[in-house]
Amino acid sequence: MSDHTVVAFDRELDELGRRITEMGDVASQMVGDAVNALSNGDSGLAQSVIESDPRLDSLQRDVEQQAILTIARRQPVARDLREVLGAVQIAKDLERIGDLAKNIAWRATTIDRRMRPLHTTVRLQQMSNVAEEMLIDILDGYARRDAMRSKMVWLRDTELDSMEDLICRDLVTQMTENPRIITACAHLLFCSKNIEGIGNHASSIAERVHYLVTGSAIDVVQPEPH
Amino acid sequence: MSDHTVVAFDRELDELGRRITEMGDVASQMVGDAVNALSNGDSGLAQSVIESDPRLDSLQRDVEQQAILTIARRQPVARDLREVLGAVQIAKDLERIGDLAKNIAWRATTIDRRMRPLHTTVRLQQMSNVAEEMLIDILDGYARRDAMRSKMVWLRDTELDSMEDLICRDLVTQMTENPRIITACAHLLFCSKNIEGIGNHASSIAERVHYLVTGSAIDVVQPEPH
Repeated sequence: MSDHTVVAFDRELDELGRRITEMGDVASQMVGDAVNALSNGDSGLAQSVIESDPRLDSLQRDVEQQAILTIARRQPVARDLREVLGAVQIAKDLERIGDLAKNIAWRATTIDRRMRPLHTTVRLQQMSNVAEEMLIDILDGYARRDAMRSKMVWLRDTELDSMEDLICRDLVTQMTENPRIITACAHLLFCSKNIEGIGNHASSIAERVHYLVTGSAIDVVQPEPH
Repeated sequence: MSDHTVVAFDRELDELGRRITEMGDVASQMVGDAVNALSNGDSGLAQSVIESDPRLDSLQRDVEQQAILTIARRQPVARDLREVLGAVQIAKDLERIGDLAKNIAWRATTIDRRMRPLHTTVRLQQMSNVAEEMLIDILDGYARRDAMRSKMVWLRDTELDSMEDLICRDLVTQMTENPRIITACAHLLFCSKNIEGIGNHASSIAERVHYLVTGSAIDVVQPEPH
């Protein structure tokens, strides 16, 4: 690339980064609000989550369009190209996180408040805190191009899997003991699965960031202790 | 592009197309086998589905690597660039379909056969047939670059949503009536959600193909009758 092209490319990459940051802010807010709405049976808050989703969809399309323009104009190769394609993939993950949060918000408006087992909503809140932390950490890791941070986030995915497994078993037990709350519990099963899915997407962004920075996948054979 | 580059680009695009076709074959086989394994309680078949997944993951990585090389070498613009990026996104959807099929296969090995309500597995089979048809149709639509076909597939997504809704309600009723089968029914709830997810990914590929061929999104305001 010529000096002029390098400057223009860097500017366009910064612009992509800003959109990813904005998407990340919207997505993590949606996740937090959706689970709060579920815990407190707050339909207004749930509705605001649902209304945030089109913004995320529109930002994702922007990232994709801008990436196509940047590739066509600047014809980046090697790491520069990975940067642009990485932004497209990360935007896709963030958009999917928004979809999952929206689904939790929809369930928050559907579940009969009186039928929600209180301790399950507390556990879902704890699970969601982990997912949100993963999301915020990896967005920071992306902004700093920090491979070690991405590995740390990626390793936390198993933590969420264990929490989901526990909640799932407990919900099945509760359904067995009290058939009146089966419908509410079925919704909560899906909420728990959605939060796990949010963590999976954060973890997928972490893999992407690691590859972007180091050019190689996260070493799965010898995970570092944490 | 020079004539030489055009020929080389077309050859590389064909190669990407072949990998997508192979991924599509593996993915649709996995979906069919996973639901058959679930219906018949066939652990061997379920295991073979689980073992197919790494092949799909590896093909997806190939598509991504090859797309990066093609962009770097041929520096395509406009529709040519959309073609290459489209292949990357379609490969991602197919890889996710494989994950969902693998999850169904895992549940097939976990659910106690005696506890499965027979009529639910029949309905899941019907639902899976629709998802498989959507997948096969859109892979054909992609190979032929057929925008109308992609729209038809996309429209079928609501069919799956209705089927999923019906199965979900029925499972909750069964859980209420017979607490002994709650664990099995909870697994079947997730299987049903996974099949719906497979349809969503087929539908997402359909949107991608439509955009690829026409340069515009599917018109959601006036869907054509089918």
